[in-house]
Amino acid sequence: MSDSVPGPAPGADGPEISGTTRLFAVIGDPVAQVRAPGLLNPLFRRLGTDAVLVPVHVRPEGLAEVLQGLRRTVNLDGLLITVPHKAACLRFADDVSPTAALSASTNAMRKDADGRWLAENFDGEGFVRGLRAAGYDPRGARVAQAGAGGAGSAIAVALLAAGADVAVWDRDPARADGLAARLAARWPGRITATKGLVAADITVNATPMGLRPDDSLPFDPAGLARGTVVADIIMKPRRTALLRAAEESGLPVHYGEPMLTEQLPLYREFFRIGAPGDPTGAS
Amino acid sequence: MSDSVPGPAPGADGPEISGTTRLFAVIGDPVAQVRAPGLLNPLFRRLGTDAVLVPVHVRPEGLAEVLQGLRRTVNLDGLLITVPHKAACLRFADDVSPTAALSASTNAMRKDADGRWLAENFDGEGFVRGLRAAGYDPRGARVAQAGAGGAGSAIAVALLAAGADVAVWDRDPARADGLAARLAARWPGRITATKGLVAADITVNATPMGLRPDDSLPFDPAGLARGTVVADIIMKPRRTALLRAAEESGLPVHYGEPMLTEQLPLYREFFRIGAPGDPTGAS
Repeated sequence: MSDSVPGPAPGADGPEISGTTRLFAVIGDPVAQVRAPGLLNPLFRRLGTDAVLVPVHVRPEGLAEVLQGLRRTVNLDGLLITVPHKAACLRFADDVSPTAALSASTNAMRKDADGRWLAENFDGEGFVRGLRAAGYDPRGARVAQAGAGGAGSAIAVALLAAGADVAVWDRDPARADGLAARLAARWPGRITATKGLVAADITVNATPMGLRPDDSLPFDPAGLARGTVVADIIMKPRRTALLRAAEESGLPVHYGEPMLTEQLPLYREFFRIGAPGDPTGAS
Repeated sequence: MSDSVPGPAPGADGPEISGTTRLFAVIGDPVAQVRAPGLLNPLFRRLGTDAVLVPVHVRPEGLAEVLQGLRRTVNLDGLLITVPHKAACLRFADDVSPTAALSASTNAMRKDADGRWLAENFDGEGFVRGLRAAGYDPRGARVAQAGAGGAGSAIAVALLAAGADVAVWDRDPARADGLAARLAARWPGRITATKGLVAADITVNATPMGLRPDDSLPFDPAGLARGTVVADIIMKPRRTALLRAAEESGLPVHYGEPMLTEQLPLYREFFRIGAPGDPTGAS
């Protein structure tokens, strides 16, 4: 049996997980598609941070018990949250940032030194940073957005904060009305609920339409004015049917990936990764 | 900010953690000293198994909530359990192996396909395999053992099953009496509770005495007959004060580490790592 006792893997790179390693988890249902471990674990290694991000698959009916267990886990410092838990996780936070409160959802939670959990939401800021990096500044732009759910709410908040005017619609009109009313209280006259696509400088799909091959288009880009940007938040497939149709109409397109990758520096700051006071002891 | 967006670490080895990675956890309080991640993660890599073992620090007052959360975690396949949770974790198992039941403690729990959790205990078998590998066959041997707690119970069970006769004592005499009575029901006449060290072929420290520099000896090996083996289950320090004293008396000694390393093939089989039907999809 001693042939089954391994030494360290030859050529293993970076710090091995040990008893001192701090934990981060990304929770979702499903969780197989999440890309955060492949982005954050190399960052931990690069910074010499003794921490690891693991996927945690939680069904909605198990969310309360898993969150309570994670809160009780002494060496767990933070959570990333993906569908369908972004709204539900808010109620497990002790403190909620203004952005998460306006978005009515959270995609990142951090345990502070006093044991309290703070909920934030970086989806919208990640999306806006991605737009800017691609040369599409939302300041003063008219944005037409499909989808007023969790991601859509966060994106609308960030677009308004960045100086865009937003027209939003949803398959469930009450959801778009509710979002517009909530955000108009903070940004009066800058957001309206519509019945569908309207003329804009930037159009955004913030619905799940396009994830599956047989989904219909969230909106038809064929009639859009020349130069209208068509953005999608879906990452898989990278080139959605919506973006294909936009390209065929000669419109500039914006892919889903930057919304995630632009969040990495935000996660890094929020979780204090590699900073003085880093709970993992790096720095 | 794009300078903070990393690609894969240069030279990174083995499969990266992703959304499909299955989870194993080792729970304890403290947990910084656990060595299982450094042993099992290289095994996963070597076998191409998409799984990771992480340390989970749980205090006794949080154990019920954390265990309930771990049970609800869909992609968690198994647990290793260390002090002080080995006895308490039994009550979170749906099924208990005969060895774990006799030991009244568990150091490994597995989630089966039907969602039921099975508790096992490999501490004793690991210890006995280590003795055998060192040339000390317990069959027919007289063993004198200090300590009737969690680890001591598991070791006594395995020694009896391997054909040794066991004399056990404990700082708490009722604990030794209770263990002897429980195991004598299964192995009549083969185990007795004593008030201290008695003549034997193999002596074992199964107490925590020796973990700290100022601990007194669990027993004094000075008066033992020539050739009596002195074994310790403590891994840190490797060479405990007991083993030093035994060596100074010219007695053969047996270190603590094999008890852990000899459990690796047992874990591998129990968790079906790399086997057909491996829940992680390897093989």
